[in-house]
Amino acid sequence: MTRATSVGRRIDHVAVAVLDADRAAQWYHDTLGFEVVGDEIVASANVRLVYLAPPDVDSDATVVQLAEPFGPGRVRSHLETNGEGLHHVCFAVDDIESFVTEQHQDLSDIFVGGRNRLACFLGGEAHGVLVEITESAESIVR
Amino acid sequence: MTRATSVGRRIDHVAVAVLDADRAAQWYHDTLGFEVVGDEIVASANVRLVYLAPPDVDSDATVVQLAEPFGPGRVRSHLETNGEGLHHVCFAVDDIESFVTEQHQDLSDIFVGGRNRLACFLGGEAHGVLVEITESAESIVR
Repeated sequence: MTRATSVGRRIDHVAVAVLDADRAAQWYHDTLGFEVVGDEIVASANVRLVYLAPPDVDSDATVVQLAEPFGPGRVRSHLETNGEGLHHVCFAVDDIESFVTEQHQDLSDIFVGGRNRLACFLGGEAHGVLVEITESAESIVR
Repeated sequence: MTRATSVGRRIDHVAVAVLDADRAAQWYHDTLGFEVVGDEIVASANVRLVYLAPPDVDSDATVVQLAEPFGPGRVRSHLETNGEGLHHVCFAVDDIESFVTEQHQDLSDIFVGGRNRLACFLGGEAHGVLVEITESAESIVR
């Protein structure tokens, strides 16, 4: 096998499309003791994003991202078609521009996503998985 | 909020139902540079499980689990209904018996899953997500 030049550093987050992020966050807290480590509006995507992590975890640990839509877009479409559930997986890379170029995607596909980070959805699905790429050393900034 | 007594330590793995684990593993290698860190048959579930992680990652990092069925069961049913894609998320806890008891599930729900670890699927879906619990300090044993 040949290895990609821009190696994925880790799984940044697993995203879940939900109808009510507060109710879902309560479930992760009550069941798994996970704590809210981020809560933001991404107006460009019409979503509220709530991040959850185990207590006392390393800043580069994989987190849960709850995505609650408040308008049209990718997440609302998913909810309408599939109901609540797993939406995408996001992998962190060191240099998103190099990565996107290697994948023969257009640099204009890069956007400023959650947590003000550069991100990009890969064109096409990877064996049925919607894959996002982000450029960041940390998943949690407390 | 009250916190669960048996706190989730981390996200152990994200599982993807696939038709051909070798082909999917190749995708993760070629695109993200992920390496195969485990490959096993779990005869009781009629699945082959292939684990992938970034190179040089900590042993408690979240990994990708590719699940390829070779007979009837949960994964084949998922493939027949939904095609390839995200299947479940698995969280690690310190003591699975305590966790299962707290969740008012039966201890007989605990089984020996992938990597010879005690595991359990939570009854019902958590906001559309199929949730597995495992008892292990490490996701990767090299």
